[in-house]
Amino acid sequence: MIELNVELGSNSYPIWMGRGLLSQGEVWRTGLPGRQIALVSNTVVAPLYLDVLKEQLSDYQLIEIVLPDGERYKNLDALESIWHKLLTEQFSRNSTIIALGGGVVGDTAGFAAACYQRGIAYLQMPTTLLAQVDSSVGGKTAVNHALGKNMIGAFYQPHGVVIDIDVLSTLPDRELSAGLAEVIKYGLIADVAFLEWLEAHIEALLARDPEALMYAIEHSCRQKAAVVAADEREAGLRAILNLGHTFGHAIEAGMGYGQYLHGEAVAIGMCQAADLSRRLGWLDDAEVERIAHLLQRARLPVKPPESLSSERFLHWMGVDKKNLNGQIRLILLRCLGEATPAMTVDIALLQATLETYGR
Amino acid sequence: MIELNVELGSNSYPIWMGRGLLSQGEVWRTGLPGRQIALVSNTVVAPLYLDVLKEQLSDYQLIEIVLPDGERYKNLDALESIWHKLLTEQFSRNSTIIALGGGVVGDTAGFAAACYQRGIAYLQMPTTLLAQVDSSVGGKTAVNHALGKNMIGAFYQPHGVVIDIDVLSTLPDRELSAGLAEVIKYGLIADVAFLEWLEAHIEALLARDPEALMYAIEHSCRQKAAVVAADEREAGLRAILNLGHTFGHAIEAGMGYGQYLHGEAVAIGMCQAADLSRRLGWLDDAEVERIAHLLQRARLPVKPPESLSSERFLHWMGVDKKNLNGQIRLILLRCLGEATPAMTVDIALLQATLETYGR
Repeated sequence: MIELNVELGSNSYPIWMGRGLLSQGEVWRTGLPGRQIALVSNTVVAPLYLDVLKEQLSDYQLIEIVLPDGERYKNLDALESIWHKLLTEQFSRNSTIIALGGGVVGDTAGFAAACYQRGIAYLQMPTTLLAQVDSSVGGKTAVNHALGKNMIGAFYQPHGVVIDIDVLSTLPDRELSAGLAEVIKYGLIADVAFLEWLEAHIEALLARDPEALMYAIEHSCRQKAAVVAADEREAGLRAILNLGHTFGHAIEAGMGYGQYLHGEAVAIGMCQAADLSRRLGWLDDAEVERIAHLLQRARLPVKPPESLSSERFLHWMGVDKKNLNGQIRLILLRCLGEATPAMTVDIALLQATLETYGR
Repeated sequence: MIELNVELGSNSYPIWMGRGLLSQGEVWRTGLPGRQIALVSNTVVAPLYLDVLKEQLSDYQLIEIVLPDGERYKNLDALESIWHKLLTEQFSRNSTIIALGGGVVGDTAGFAAACYQRGIAYLQMPTTLLAQVDSSVGGKTAVNHALGKNMIGAFYQPHGVVIDIDVLSTLPDRELSAGLAEVIKYGLIADVAFLEWLEAHIEALLARDPEALMYAIEHSCRQKAAVVAADEREAGLRAILNLGHTFGHAIEAGMGYGQYLHGEAVAIGMCQAADLSRRLGWLDDAEVERIAHLLQRARLPVKPPESLSSERFLHWMGVDKKNLNGQIRLILLRCLGEATPAMTVDIALLQATLETYGR
């Protein structure tokens, strides 16, 4: 087992990574306040792993809240169902929420914990690769609003993050690849050596080799923890974690949520960001191709959907018609291994990327 | 004008107190992020003071959100109406909410700010005495849930608090008295000299003498700021601010919200807390009487409602039948001017107070 600390002063917390951690309660039960625990999961994950957890918590007052699976249930109604159950069962300020599932469960349960009686403890137990390397670390919690994704939320750090590598054995292939998109992102934004390691080990990762997964997850979490420690509330630096995300968001929203997985949309978006970086003279053709090639080997899409016109892309990226002569702030690559936050880019260059890259 | 700082490290903020401050935008506009401001108020206060504010903000993009008046509208629906408007008007992470009203508006708008895009700035502009000396300072935000008061919320500090004494001129007498209950509380929990000052100036306060009001408000805010600075998240000390509140909560809930104003219920609750303190040998008969006398002079009730039996009191105080041989944690008075947090008290003594005090 590896223990890694997210350094945030009085909000610091450990990330535990290893095999079979769900059934090693002695690792993550330490320091939990009170004797009341709410297990929040979804209809896919709960049948697989909830019993394992419950065995580790036999001397606690437990309640189970099983949410429907999917991004469209990450909303205020899900929050209300959690709060209602906690209140009905008279859960106190000293109770704890455990979020067992992917990013949707983690974001929703984390935000429910942030607001219940003005904040109770919660543990993240991510069960997808994407959640393990990204959403479970850093305290960004939120639900979607009908008028925007992740619009209602809080920066609220967990009590700890429990990453059990073994749960990835039941993850569908497509979701494994989607998680690899975020893993590759860490190489692109901050670490060429890790990028090279990924190029050498992408097949091992796809084959779910535990050692390779452990290395990639640890490395990703270290990157994320360092960025979050430097900029918890995304005043500046933390934005580099959004490489490819503004493009990706446009794909997710423009095609209708659920059509593309988040990681798939980000993979395409990172290619578009690379192409735009090339137009600024920061990357060369070979480097743009190298990025796309690695993503393709990870079985990820790299071309934007044909039906999404550059005009609709611009709309979903937040550029409206009256701004077409203006500029936009995006995360781009200065070079391989170095992302630049909030650069101001000519819309005309962006349009060129949208109209030609992958078309 | 007096400026007082609430010392909370990177979350520190000023309280400005004075006459006519609403129309002195130069005082409180400084440092507001962005150019978008949402004015949140209610149907009683908006017609009186919203135009004054708008004059001070003519070069901002303004939206107005006027909530229905009353505690029963401090709920998730009110939050949703605020968020919906902010999203419809494309308010960014750099926008600001101004909460103009009493505690309900402040708590609701503050919590809306805490969660919108994971937290935007907000200014408190309290228009009741209760909000000026209590709820607007300290960052406790919340809404009610059908299953409990203030159950959903956050500790989220404002950008600043603007206390304009002049707005108290339009406050109904009953609400002025309710605010004085919390003012008197500060004397009881931490400052006998202030208690004596209040005994000498209670008529001036009821007559809304500006100098007397200014002194009482400044003194109350200093007390509150000191307690909050020492214990922002109510891990311990901050609980002394709840003197009389567990009793008061039982009165509010047991009689149906709206029957008693919060300050009225707290006034009765402080008398009951004093009586219980007497039973522990901490106060004498004369001191208990002295407290009740001052509250009565402030035109506040001091006797519990006849229709609320001690049994129902216990229920609403969170004591259930199986705990009747147990203990309860309450804030009591060690002596005049010193409250003790979370003392453990025999339920039998509490029952004696409930059955005899004021009956």
